[in-house]
Amino acid sequence: MTATPPSLPIARTVESLRATVREWRRQGLGVAFVPTMGALHEGHLTLVAEAKERADRVVASVFVNPTQFAAHEDLGTYPRDEARDATLLTEAGCHLLFAPTVSEIYPEGSSTRIEVDGPSQGLETDFRPHFFGGVALVVAKLLNQVQADVAVFGEKDYQQLLVVRRMAADLDIPTRIVGSPTLRDGHGLALSSRNAYLSEAELAVARQLNGILAEAAAAVSADTPIALAEDTATNALLAAGFRQVDYVAVRRADDLARFKGPVDAPARILAAAWLGKTRLIDNLPV
Amino acid sequence: MTATPPSLPIARTVESLRATVREWRRQGLGVAFVPTMGALHEGHLTLVAEAKERADRVVASVFVNPTQFAAHEDLGTYPRDEARDATLLTEAGCHLLFAPTVSEIYPEGSSTRIEVDGPSQGLETDFRPHFFGGVALVVAKLLNQVQADVAVFGEKDYQQLLVVRRMAADLDIPTRIVGSPTLRDGHGLALSSRNAYLSEAELAVARQLNGILAEAAAAVSADTPIALAEDTATNALLAAGFRQVDYVAVRRADDLARFKGPVDAPARILAAAWLGKTRLIDNLPV
Repeated sequence: MTATPPSLPIARTVESLRATVREWRRQGLGVAFVPTMGALHEGHLTLVAEAKERADRVVASVFVNPTQFAAHEDLGTYPRDEARDATLLTEAGCHLLFAPTVSEIYPEGSSTRIEVDGPSQGLETDFRPHFFGGVALVVAKLLNQVQADVAVFGEKDYQQLLVVRRMAADLDIPTRIVGSPTLRDGHGLALSSRNAYLSEAELAVARQLNGILAEAAAAVSADTPIALAEDTATNALLAAGFRQVDYVAVRRADDLARFKGPVDAPARILAAAWLGKTRLIDNLPV
Repeated sequence: MTATPPSLPIARTVESLRATVREWRRQGLGVAFVPTMGALHEGHLTLVAEAKERADRVVASVFVNPTQFAAHEDLGTYPRDEARDATLLTEAGCHLLFAPTVSEIYPEGSSTRIEVDGPSQGLETDFRPHFFGGVALVVAKLLNQVQADVAVFGEKDYQQLLVVRRMAADLDIPTRIVGSPTLRDGHGLALSSRNAYLSEAELAVARQLNGILAEAAAAVSADTPIALAEDTATNALLAAGFRQVDYVAVRRADDLARFKGPVDAPARILAAAWLGKTRLIDNLPV
């Protein structure tokens, strides 16, 4: 573990991470964990703030996890700026940054995979079939590495939050999984590291996603049939300038199951759509 | 948690298990864990003895894990006698028995699977394709439930030991996995709960398994080609009265990979063979 300006300790190995957490435990301190892929924005910092509410010490990780990217996806170009991330985390009051190498997380001989059915079925999985397997594996590893009392995940990646919660419950990982509401810019656009890919023109289109989903959610609340509300939103997104809509879907909020009849349980509307080469996702409660 | 004669506490829920372990931790005590499927014999008790050597407190679990049995296997008839198991564990100096129900371990909605490649490939997997997935899942859960410093597994199930070690490393489960040598009867037969299925005549045949494997191991050590030693042992098992031989295989001891040329690393000989409806496995260092 080495100190870098502005003085946020950075653990590079599981061993040094655990040594720090162990010392905190010895002092009777509670520990919260915020896993990230870096390229931090205000949304991530609200997760750190949420973590600080819940524990004495906060560990954030920055690890661009290769197992959740397909070969054609943006692993190579995913934005990376550790110095900036460390500065932001320091300002947010984070106590330790865990920034391991790929070989620290996946040493030679690694051969375990995790598959989570249930909430991982459909939606993102229809378009990124390996995604949640990669997410579940790296999050299981990180949770067991940090051994925090609580880990905070953004609701921005709502399906991911449910998959992580399911996986942690199923593997009896003793860290509580907490979801934190999505932070949006002044125009309602959900903050995302991938927004950095957007041109000015694309950004103007992107800012319509939230409103179109909110209209569809309101329609479903007013008893518009789900399929019709989904189609209307899809058409509105294409008309707004999205190149392609992967899905707009209203699902049960707790497990993402489809409603077989009327909406008789808390619901969530989720969408994924493309602007040029950039794929955006968002979701709202119904 | 309720006490039963002769006074070994039995935890039925993860919550009561964790409460006990937490109290031990508070007292600064080290914890070791011995997972079993019950039907305990002297072999299991050596695992408890090994655990006692390594920690202040020993948790043993008795759970006949349905996810590692195929539909045609002996889940329904697998021997169960909790009262006897509890007596034996008490005499062995165990401090807590964790004996959960199936629904405590797999509540409704459970949907996570674990697959371990590497050491799980071939051998048992060729004949019990779902076995190690079920083992890896339940062991991951149990390890995270108990959160022991060390967990002791028998070398009798050598491939299982390597799969568990691989899984625990890959998921960064902070419990050290220890293998304990196989206990044998006076005739060299590896102790196994499934030996209870054997008739007197079958028992006499079963007792030849160890010697035949030892001869093959000696032959390999004396530079007999692996394939020839494997075939010779297979023929000897069939001649001794085994109904069917699933495999006799000489593999690298650390990962069960095949030798591509001469034996240039520590090796292990492993076998599975049938006597009537009973399938026996055994293994020896080469």
